[in-house]
Amino acid sequence: MLKTPYLLFLGDAHDALSAKVARGIYDWRPDFALGQLRFDKCQADLGIPDITIEEAVSKGAGTMVVGVANRGGFIAESWIVVLKQALEAGMDLAAGLHDKLADVSELRETAARLDRKLFDVRHPTQSFPIGSGAKRAGKRLLGVGTDCSCGKMYTALAIEKEMHARGMKADFRATGQTGILISGAGVSVDAVISDFISGAVETLAPANDPDHWDLVEGQGSLYHPAYAGVTTGLIHGAQPDALVLCHESTRTHMRGLPDYPIPDMGDVMDLALRIARLTNPNAEFVGVAVNTTNLDNVASKHFLVQTEDRFGLPTVDPVRTGVGRIVDALR
Amino acid sequence: MLKTPYLLFLGDAHDALSAKVARGIYDWRPDFALGQLRFDKCQADLGIPDITIEEAVSKGAGTMVVGVANRGGFIAESWIVVLKQALEAGMDLAAGLHDKLADVSELRETAARLDRKLFDVRHPTQSFPIGSGAKRAGKRLLGVGTDCSCGKMYTALAIEKEMHARGMKADFRATGQTGILISGAGVSVDAVISDFISGAVETLAPANDPDHWDLVEGQGSLYHPAYAGVTTGLIHGAQPDALVLCHESTRTHMRGLPDYPIPDMGDVMDLALRIARLTNPNAEFVGVAVNTTNLDNVASKHFLVQTEDRFGLPTVDPVRTGVGRIVDALR
Repeated sequence: MLKTPYLLFLGDAHDALSAKVARGIYDWRPDFALGQLRFDKCQADLGIPDITIEEAVSKGAGTMVVGVANRGGFIAESWIVVLKQALEAGMDLAAGLHDKLADVSELRETAARLDRKLFDVRHPTQSFPIGSGAKRAGKRLLGVGTDCSCGKMYTALAIEKEMHARGMKADFRATGQTGILISGAGVSVDAVISDFISGAVETLAPANDPDHWDLVEGQGSLYHPAYAGVTTGLIHGAQPDALVLCHESTRTHMRGLPDYPIPDMGDVMDLALRIARLTNPNAEFVGVAVNTTNLDNVASKHFLVQTEDRFGLPTVDPVRTGVGRIVDALR
Repeated sequence: MLKTPYLLFLGDAHDALSAKVARGIYDWRPDFALGQLRFDKCQADLGIPDITIEEAVSKGAGTMVVGVANRGGFIAESWIVVLKQALEAGMDLAAGLHDKLADVSELRETAARLDRKLFDVRHPTQSFPIGSGAKRAGKRLLGVGTDCSCGKMYTALAIEKEMHARGMKADFRATGQTGILISGAGVSVDAVISDFISGAVETLAPANDPDHWDLVEGQGSLYHPAYAGVTTGLIHGAQPDALVLCHESTRTHMRGLPDYPIPDMGDVMDLALRIARLTNPNAEFVGVAVNTTNLDNVASKHFLVQTEDRFGLPTVDPVRTGVGRIVDALR
């Protein structure tokens, strides 16, 4: 668990996209975003107050989160003095980069001396049990994708927000680094030792009240030749009651793999159900969430209507239409 | 790659079963088994010469392999002095235990000082690429099981032996600790970071001659709620041309999980084919290997005949009948 609220470190972000982790935190957990810390040449702006490390601490900031990523996911030399100042001022540090904060000796030593924590959320340090497959109380919803990066995290967060607005008990359960930084907790399942994937997810989404929903962030795709093992373990560990198919409407091949076409949505649903029913025989698809960013309004609407007709399930674009109709279907 | 041949360390093995790793090495790679090293109270005996560390080194032993496992997989205090002597005499050390040789400071320091290697084969130290899904030359056969521990390693080793006897090009590719110690190389796939499962298997069974067979050791089961992610990544990375279903004929529930019944063999074949065809559209089942240890001769024969009739595939017990009929089907 990260200490909230956060000071969001944007550093020398060279465009808005490179600050998308910080943007995600502010969009989904505005209460966590006390302020932003930017270098002079920073090209990103969240539109929240620029505050100093001292101001952040005086306002109660618990963690400075590295909300910027450069190509390669490394920790820039120019960041280190500021990261160290944050530790010295009283905050923990968190990052979801490929490089580890804990591998920078200056940060590791400062944190150890002052008893601060370094959270490298892409690199889990806990150990997990082997999955038990035992049924647990509470309800769980999981997004499964036709591909990676097609809107699974966004969909889960949007459903959590909608449920909270309706007074339902719900928790987003992060399984990737951005989701962990946004929600302050979670497990990067693709970085867990293979033997423990489903056990890690069982731990992440534990037994709960019968009317409580865990909204588990999906990962990868059953049709991705590199990541399907992660997706399978995630499905088994989540024991989802409700599945939501996540799809990007214009993609033609799997991310990074021109020789692997995007699978048919119906095939993905069929395979996902078959796998999910091993640990939850009552698993059902309850909706389809399509990312139609690359379509105009008319084409987007057409795609959603067509998909809804085909599967007979509420079909939404979480950004354009919201996810209310999927939540309706759960009640 | 472990240096062969081996001195097999049996230590204080309290029964034959606890020395099954050493037994496996001697059964499948008798040339690797220079001799055994046993304490006075050792209750296991491979029937090979008892030799000293000095004799082993003088006969060219490259590695002393811990061929015994106690409950819990720890390194017994009483072993350490002997393990250290082996390092000092000129051998590397290898073990497939839960505990790491490298975590015993005396062994770590001795190995570093003398430039010897410690192989904790259950804990891979290499890093692997993300799976590419790219087709590679050569043929691959993979065992998929209805459960864990139902004969997948034995089947792959038996097929390798049969192929070698027929002059075919073939290599067993180990994916678990016992297989690695037997063959001297491999990757413990269940200990690899989830993101890299299929990439690790692509590395393990690389491109080869068009008429060369890699016999990839299967792991877990698609129907095991803890391990199916490993199995899925293994299938995708292996890109098997040929699949062999492995089954234990009398088991009623998944290993360690009384609430999970053993799946129907036909269901496992159907799901495995569906998954395998993502990375190899030509994947086919070529046979069934049944472990009928717990049946008498009549019942065993009956089970094999019935299964063969049902699926129309050569059905063998690798121990009782050999695997020749499966190899026949490949030619």
